[in-house]
Amino acid sequence: MTHRIAVIPGDGIGGEVVPAAIEVLEALDLGFEFVDGEAGDHVRDERGEALPQETYDLAAEADATLFGAAGETAADVILPLREAVGSFANVRPARAHPGVDAVKPETDIVFVRENTEGVYAGIEDDLTDDVTTLTRLITESASRRIAEFGFEYAEENDFSEVTVAHKANVMRKTDGRFLAACEAVAEEGGYAYEEALMDALAMHLIMHPEDYGVVICPNLAGDMLSDLAAGLVGGLGLLPSANVGPDNALFEPVHGSAPDIAGEGIANPAAMILSAAMMLDHLGYGDEAGRVRDAVTAVLEEGPRTPDLGGDATTADVTQAVLNAL
Amino acid sequence: MTHRIAVIPGDGIGGEVVPAAIEVLEALDLGFEFVDGEAGDHVRDERGEALPQETYDLAAEADATLFGAAGETAADVILPLREAVGSFANVRPARAHPGVDAVKPETDIVFVRENTEGVYAGIEDDLTDDVTTLTRLITESASRRIAEFGFEYAEENDFSEVTVAHKANVMRKTDGRFLAACEAVAEEGGYAYEEALMDALAMHLIMHPEDYGVVICPNLAGDMLSDLAAGLVGGLGLLPSANVGPDNALFEPVHGSAPDIAGEGIANPAAMILSAAMMLDHLGYGDEAGRVRDAVTAVLEEGPRTPDLGGDATTADVTQAVLNAL
Ligand SMILES: CC(C)[C@H](C(=O)O)[C@@H](O)C(=O)O
Ligand SMILES: CC(C)[C@H](C(=O)O)[C@@H](O)C(=O)O
Repeated sequence: MTHRIAVIPGDGIGGEVVPAAIEVLEALDLGFEFVDGEAGDHVRDERGEALPQETYDLAAEADATLFGAAGETAADVILPLREAVGSFANVRPARAHPGVDAVKPETDIVFVRENTEGVYAGIEDDLTDDVTTLTRLITESASRRIAEFGFEYAEENDFSEVTVAHKANVMRKTDGRFLAACEAVAEEGGYAYEEALMDALAMHLIMHPEDYGVVICPNLAGDMLSDLAAGLVGGLGLLPSANVGPDNALFEPVHGSAPDIAGEGIANPAAMILSAAMMLDHLGYGDEAGRVRDAVTAVLEEGPRTPDLGGDATTADVTQAVLNAL
Repeated sequence: MTHRIAVIPGDGIGGEVVPAAIEVLEALDLGFEFVDGEAGDHVRDERGEALPQETYDLAAEADATLFGAAGETAADVILPLREAVGSFANVRPARAHPGVDAVKPETDIVFVRENTEGVYAGIEDDLTDDVTTLTRLITESASRRIAEFGFEYAEENDFSEVTVAHKANVMRKTDGRFLAACEAVAEEGGYAYEEALMDALAMHLIMHPEDYGVVICPNLAGDMLSDLAAGLVGGLGLLPSANVGPDNALFEPVHGSAPDIAGEGIANPAAMILSAAMMLDHLGYGDEAGRVRDAVTAVLEEGPRTPDLGGDATTADVTQAVLNAL
C-alpha cells in the first residue's frame, strides 16, 4: 500500500530541513508519494493568504503531512492545518540526547497536549472600550479523548508515570471537568496516574524531570510545559512532534522558521527527521522509524554537528551522515 | 507612626514560619502592632469557612498583612485576601543564593504578575452536559496599571531588561490588548522592553536566565513562569512575594503549607522572613529591609540549614542565626 504524504516546507529553515527529511524517507524506499503544498509568510506576501485552500485540502486528503515551519504567520498556518488533519492530540517527546548539552540530561518525557480547544477555541470579544474577553472551552468529549489517547500512549510506550496537568483550584469548572474526565477514563481502563497543578509542575519538571513520563495537558499548558522541557534537553532544535487525528496526522519540528539562519544551509535537520520518524511509526513502519531514530542518535553523539550544537557542519553534511548511519 | 500588621499564619508550616518572621521584625523594634487572624483548612473544618469575614476585614483594614500558607483551601483563602488588600500586582523575585544548590545560579529575575483578572476572574459556566466555559477577562485599565507598575519597578530597582510575556498569536484580542497597553505605557514613559511569547519564554528562561530582569505577565502566565523560575533557583522554599495594592499589601512566601513536614519544627523560614523584608521596603523601612535580607543571605551561605537545604537545623536555629546576623 502506497502512502500519499503532503509536504509543506513553509518559511525559512522549513525549506531546508523538510528536504533533508524527505531524503531520509526516500532512502528507505517505502514507495511514498510526496505532494508539495505551499504555506507561510512568503505565500501571504504573494497571494494575500498564508494558507491557501488547496494546501488545506492537500493536508486534509493526504495520509499524513510533513510540515516545516512558518514565520509571522505561524498561527494562521499551523492551527488550520492541525484542524485539516483532524488532530486532537499533539504528541511532544522531550528527550535528551547523548552528546548534546542539556540542563537536565535525564529528561525523557512525552507531553500529550489537547489540540482542539481550551484558549485555542478562538472565541474573543471586545465588549467595551476597556474590556476584552476570551472564552476558554473545555468539553467532556475532547477531555475524554485526550485522556484515552494519553493513557494508551503511555501503556504502549512503556511509560510507568502518567501525570495530568491542570489548574482546577482556580479554573474550577473547566479544569474540574478536564480532571474528572481523566479520572473517569483512568478508572475505566485501570490506569494509574498523578494529578499536578500546572504551576507546581513547572517547578518540579525542572528540579526532578526523572519523575515524569507522560504528561497529559490542556492545550495552552501543553504548549508552555513542552517548551519548558525543550529548555531542559538543550532547546527546540531537537524536538519532533506529531499532531494526531483519528485517521490522519501532521508531523512537525517544535522549532520555528529561524529567520536569523535561514538560507545559510546550516539548520539542524534533526527535529524534522525525528518528526519523519514519528510519521513512520504512525503509518505502521515501526522498524524503519527505529532505524531513523538510531541513525539520528548516532550522528548527534558522534557528529557532524551543525552550529547550534557547537559544530560547523551544514544541513547537507548532517543529512548525509544520517543516511550513512541508516 | 506605628503600623498595624495583620498576621495570618494559616495552615501547616505557616504556623511555624510566620512566628519566625515576627521575631525578626520585633527585633528591629519598629513599634509595629501585630494583630492575628485565622484562615485555612483548620478554620474551614471548625467553622465551615476557610476565610471568616473578620479575617478578610482585618487584612483590608491593616497597613499590611503577613500571610503564611493554606492547605487545600489555598485558593479560597489567598484569592479573597489579595482582593481584600486591593492587590493588583504580584511581585515575585526569583534569585539564587550563594550556598544553595540551584539549577541556574545566575538567575535574578522579578516577575510582576497581574493579580486581578485573566483566567482568575472566576467566570465559569456549565453550558451543556458536554461543554464548560471560562471567560478570560483582560481590561485596558488593569493591563495599563500592571505595565506602569512593572516598568517603574524595573527603573527603581535598576533592572535594565524588561520583558512582557504574552500569547497574542493565539489569544489575539485579549493578549493583543495586554500587549498594546504595555506598548502604550512604555511609549509614554520612554521605557525599553522586549516582548516574548510565553511558551518560547519558558524555554529561554531555563537556558538563559541571565538575559532576563523584570518579566511583566498576565495572571496565569505569571503563576507558571514564577514557579518555573523557582525551579531554577532551588525550589519554592526560598521565594518571597508581595501582593501590592494602591494603599495596602500582603506578603507571603511562594511555598505552600507543606503538610509532610508541618509540626516538626524544621520548616525553612527564609521565604517568610524575606517576605517580611519586602513588607519593610513597602512600608518605607528600606534600611531595615536590607539588613534582614543580608542576614538571611549570610545564614543561607554559612548555615545553619534546615533539611530542605541538606542541613539538620530547626526553624528556631535558623531564626536565631538570622537574629544574630542582623
Ligand atoms: C504558533 C503557535 C500557534 C503554536 C501553538 O501555540 O500551538 C506553537 O507555539 C506550537 O507550540 O506549535
Ligand atoms: C493557590 C493558588 C490560587 C495561587 C495562585 O494561583 O495564584 C498559588 O498558586 C500562588 O501562586 O500563589
